Amino acid sequence: MADEIQEALDKIFAKDSEIYKSRGFQRRIGYGKRPAIINIDLANAWTRPGHAFSCDGMDTIIPGVQALLKAGRAKRIPVVYTTTAYNVTEGTNTDMGLWHLKIPVEILNLENKEDVAIDDRIAPEANEQVIVKKRASAFHGTYLSSFLQANGIDTVILTGVTMAGCVRHTCEDAIAEGFRPIVVRECVGDRVPGVVEWNLFDIDAKFGDVEPLESVLDYLARIDPVPLRNAP
Amino acid sequence: MADEIQEALDKIFAKDSEIYKSRGFQRRIGYGKRPAIINIDLANAWTRPGHAFSCDGMDTIIPGVQALLKAGRAKRIPVVYTTTAYNVTEGTNTDMGLWHLKIPVEILNLENKEDVAIDDRIAPEANEQVIVKKRASAFHGTYLSSFLQANGIDTVILTGVTMAGCVRHTCEDAIAEGFRPIVVRECVGDRVPGVVEWNLFDIDAKFGDVEPLESVLDYLARIDPVPLRNAP
Amino acid sequence: MADEIQEALDKIFAKDSEIYKSRGFQRRIGYGKRPAIINIDLANAWTRPGHAFSCDGMDTIIPGVQALLKAGRAKRIPVVYTTTAYNVTEGTNTDMGLWHLKIPVEILNLENKEDVAIDDRIAPEANEQVIVKKRASAFHGTYLSSFLQANGIDTVILTGVTMAGCVRHTCEDAIAEGFRPIVVRECVGDRVPGVVEWNLFDIDAKFGDVEPLESVLDYLARIDPVPLRNAP
Amino acid sequence: MADEIQEALDKIFAKDSEIYKSRGFQRRIGYGKRPAIINIDLANAWTRPGHAFSCDGMDTIIPGVQALLKAGRAKRIPVVYTTTAYNVTEGTNTDMGLWHLKIPVEILNLENKEDVAIDDRIAPEANEQVIVKKRASAFHGTYLSSFLQANGIDTVILTGVTMAGCVRHTCEDAIAEGFRPIVVRECVGDRVPGVVEWNLFDIDAKFGDVEPLESVLDYLARIDPVPLRNAP
Repeated sequence: MADEIQEALDKIFAKDSEIYKSRGFQRRIGYGKRPAIINIDLANAWTRPGHAFSCDGMDTIIPGVQALLKAGRAKRIPVVYTTTAYNVTEGTNTDMGLWHLKIPVEILNLENKEDVAIDDRIAPEANEQVIVKKRASAFHGTYLSSFLQANGIDTVILTGVTMAGCVRHTCEDAIAEGFRPIVVRECVGDRVPGVVEWNLFDIDAKFGDVEPLESVLDYLARIDPVPLRNAP
Repeated sequence: MADEIQEALDKIFAKDSEIYKSRGFQRRIGYGKRPAIINIDLANAWTRPGHAFSCDGMDTIIPGVQALLKAGRAKRIPVVYTTTAYNVTEGTNTDMGLWHLKIPVEILNLENKEDVAIDDRIAPEANEQVIVKKRASAFHGTYLSSFLQANGIDTVILTGVTMAGCVRHTCEDAIAEGFRPIVVRECVGDRVPGVVEWNLFDIDAKFGDVEPLESVLDYLARIDPVPLRNAP
Repeated sequence: MADEIQEALDKIFAKDSEIYKSRGFQRRIGYGKRPAIINIDLANAWTRPGHAFSCDGMDTIIPGVQALLKAGRAKRIPVVYTTTAYNVTEGTNTDMGLWHLKIPVEILNLENKEDVAIDDRIAPEANEQVIVKKRASAFHGTYLSSFLQANGIDTVILTGVTMAGCVRHTCEDAIAEGFRPIVVRECVGDRVPGVVEWNLFDIDAKFGDVEPLESVLDYLARIDPVPLRNAP
Repeated sequence: MADEIQEALDKIFAKDSEIYKSRGFQRRIGYGKRPAIINIDLANAWTRPGHAFSCDGMDTIIPGVQALLKAGRAKRIPVVYTTTAYNVTEGTNTDMGLWHLKIPVEILNLENKEDVAIDDRIAPEANEQVIVKKRASAFHGTYLSSFLQANGIDTVILTGVTMAGCVRHTCEDAIAEGFRPIVVRECVGDRVPGVVEWNLFDIDAKFGDVEPLESVLDYLARIDPVPLRNAP
């Protein structure tokens, strides 16, 4: 069925792109000078099979992120990971907000340490940020925006899951905050057919550039490294 | 082509819903006790033909919003409108942020008063809020969240355009902030085929309830009116 | 010198209050119906002697907070603690933002676990939130606001340190977000003479009510307990 | 009495500074490379006599701001003004939030156009931002942060009123967001004795640099002008 879905979507996207282009949408935001890599929810509950949150495509996503991390670390750019996890998932006074009324976040308790830990194939290094977020967007209720601003970042390279959920909301917030969002096509995933394609289409039309991994690696190879003592 | 697109999408959604349901997604968030109506970007640039931002479906959207407004005003619930418009659309120091690098927001200058004014078929009353936003989400960079919190609101009824842009981002932010988002199916629109359907599907799976107008009108008929002097 | 300072300040406050009162400032915001207790930075680096961040007055503050916790837990209201701590305090890509350029936050590394842990005389219980914040305000870059909104809170009871720093900024943000701030006079402190008094004066004039512990305990005794299953 | 107050405060500040310095507080944040000028609430209700919000010191503040504007405009740096004003100041559904429960913001209705307009001695130019805020901080519920981030700003030069209210909260938010706050000593004011001095003392200890006008003018003379076409 995958081919059939892709074919149907391609037809729709072709038609929609005509309209968008004729009206001045689908522009390129382009790369800035000071990027950071933001890996969304590449924790075991999402990257490994057998979990309600498990996503497809890790055979492509994980090696892609590994390549990005290598290229980004060589330039000392900030690397941020998020995971989604909660202190209180029962009874009153939960930090899940209202989200458990839509999706099963009650299984993402911080006590399930293995589930909510970043996949060790792309393990964070000591000087990288792991942000435990409570909502879909990596920016919502976190210090991500001020971390990026204080470090002079102008571009965010986005990877991870899910494309229809946390990656999309993060991308929308990123451009709203004033950062150039670059979504790496091979490094994002989800868990139901068609949803990656449609959300990439929407994002590229309005909120950020969807770029192939190769283009992003080329870019990271070209930029200046962050100075060892990063003023301020 | 519309039928063909709808058929293709329906097949995909049926398959995807199976997966979502089996994993505990697509739950109902339900109505709360204290709603507000948020009308997104129902200004002339979006509701009237001949503009780069013009949207389809106003024959259904406008009467639907009129019915909602009547029902909501009868209960004195807060009504909020947004429009998207800018002070500076040329040269340096623009308030467009980076968005003009993706879509043609440079034509939404505040000087084009008619374009960015709310459609007079659904005109705001004197005690209703018209928020000039700069980004897709009605929450981003606005006082919407604290307005709702201070007035004791727990539910936001969302209408307007576009479904793939401002309505979706607003809905994602709404649940993130702790409000129950209800998207009124007949009262949202966009400008390219398929995009309303897909985004409603994503939203209903993860971020808010998509409800028919009739259900929302029933709900508004049932709730208590806001007291004339709203303590505090 | 303490008496002399107090006397000088009292004179100034008397004069200033006349002006404020004649102009309609210094009103009472009052208690709402659904409070939460927010304990700001009552971690060992602030509550124990011998640290650059050590504060005075713990002989009064700690028993006061103990009494508040007992009263609040009896009603199952949310209890939130904050601490201020960082992942990266050297070199590039720090999460300190720019704050180390003003104050010595570089010593608040998360690896100094004892320093940044909540004082065990007022230890958090399992279902209470401990928020690691990066900035002065408990609201800035945290999920506090959406946690409170989603749980229907309308009033925040503030304790902790420092009055001229994190407590004040939290209080200002609280009223801005739409919560009634109640600062408990006996439960806030700082580290230099006069600064608690002046900041309480400013807060009470403009941003929140400064109330004696006894009044707050009376209030907590009066309110309804949070239902065991807190809808939603 | 002014001299007496100043003398008392100077004694306290001298003592407090000893403690702060010995503990590593009161550092200098310094100027960055890309400043913006933010003028807080220099609207007629604050700058002219006879209003509940009237502030003292305009004989110094207005000429100081005029000098800053001239220097800043010569370099094409962003200039932002705020005013505080509301759509609905009676009955239900107000945008005042809870602030009218502490201070008389109900008189700041947007219909009182003259009151809430920027003082014409320091009138905004066509390409400058005038932000109507609802809360004390110029950042709270406004697009200020993303406006600054998208335009590459790293430093905010703060002027206006009141020092114990809107200027202080704006300054605290500015450093929290990752901007270097510079408060111009001659260009800030308030309406009761002692309050400017104390709040400048607190700010300089912890949140931003308090600098004389001359130093800020020197800085603005030194920086590069913003390019005519400000990429992006």
